[in-house]
Amino acid sequence: MQSHPGNVFVISAPSGTGKSTLANRLVASLDNLIFSISTTTRAPRTGEVEGKDYFFVDDAAFDEVVRANGFIEWVQVYEKRYGTGRAWLQSVLDSGQDVLLDIETTGAMNLRRAIPDAVMIFILPPSAKELERRLRGRGKDSEAQVKARMNHARHELELYHAYDFLVVNEDLETSYRQMESIVWATRVRRERMVGRAQEILRGF
Amino acid sequence: MQSHPGNVFVISAPSGTGKSTLANRLVASLDNLIFSISTTTRAPRTGEVEGKDYFFVDDAAFDEVVRANGFIEWVQVYEKRYGTGRAWLQSVLDSGQDVLLDIETTGAMNLRRAIPDAVMIFILPPSAKELERRLRGRGKDSEAQVKARMNHARHELELYHAYDFLVVNEDLETSYRQMESIVWATRVRRERMVGRAQEILRGF
Repeated sequence: MQSHPGNVFVISAPSGTGKSTLANRLVASLDNLIFSISTTTRAPRTGEVEGKDYFFVDDAAFDEVVRANGFIEWVQVYEKRYGTGRAWLQSVLDSGQDVLLDIETTGAMNLRRAIPDAVMIFILPPSAKELERRLRGRGKDSEAQVKARMNHARHELELYHAYDFLVVNEDLETSYRQMESIVWATRVRRERMVGRAQEILRGF
Repeated sequence: MQSHPGNVFVISAPSGTGKSTLANRLVASLDNLIFSISTTTRAPRTGEVEGKDYFFVDDAAFDEVVRANGFIEWVQVYEKRYGTGRAWLQSVLDSGQDVLLDIETTGAMNLRRAIPDAVMIFILPPSAKELERRLRGRGKDSEAQVKARMNHARHELELYHAYDFLVVNEDLETSYRQMESIVWATRVRRERMVGRAQEILRGF
């Protein structure tokens, strides 16, 4: 990726950690921050809108973009593939928008290689016990599924050291404030402010 | 400095930029953040309290600490010297407190060498014109003093690239929120959260 005025934020977390709640609130509350729109081969679910929730494509079209190196990162989850379009992301960043990518750890590792200055945030549950309690509390999963999710969570958590920020979601308000602070602080990092500083200096 | 649980924040800015207002509010509002207490050879001003505002010492005592390498950084301003005591700072950080140092650019450069992971924040005026207007508006300085302050400001501003965060103080509320965010975000940086993450991981 070329240098760009917008920031890339990546957020990953085991299922049941509260990631979607936090990410949705962040994008709804902060100016100039939008969700990345992935390209996927899975079918649209009821209510999902092309070009808003996803770009929906068939396998052949997805293959073509992969061959053209047109994805910053892409992953296969079960039978379906999900990718972040390079040209799409670049054009959004060039317009000065910050982009939030809600992606799995595998995709995040790939994205880090493509965009080294991406700001990577990992959300952790306060404890294994609490995550299990929340997963059961949702009532969406069978016993076997809960066990599989807990096992998968452990594998994801082992990758925490690849992230820049670790948010332990014990209390939603505190976690939200931490996430918001990461975005605000990133926007005043020296690298982002050099142009402004030089302009001010020229006035002296 | 040895590794420590507390964070070191450094704040520098040209005179008239609003640094003291921002720093005072930050320390008053945030838990677990205190001002560094400098050691100085200048005389106490009315109302200043030993061990709260400064540690007041004579020249011989200051020399002794310098010889023993007891200052993390020290500078001479006109006839007077100011230093940050190594043992004092280490003991405060060891107790888990974050410390805010309000120091000049020269001291800040020295501190960076001693504590590479210090978080360094530089506050800039929105423009030279606005800084001049604010300096005159204070009515504290003669014309010659304003000119000298503007000249000194330019020299300080040239060091902006040595800082991690650049806050342009155009609007006080926005600048305050940026500063607060830098502190909050620093507290969830991976390096600070490794212990917690490992503890959570052990539960899985």
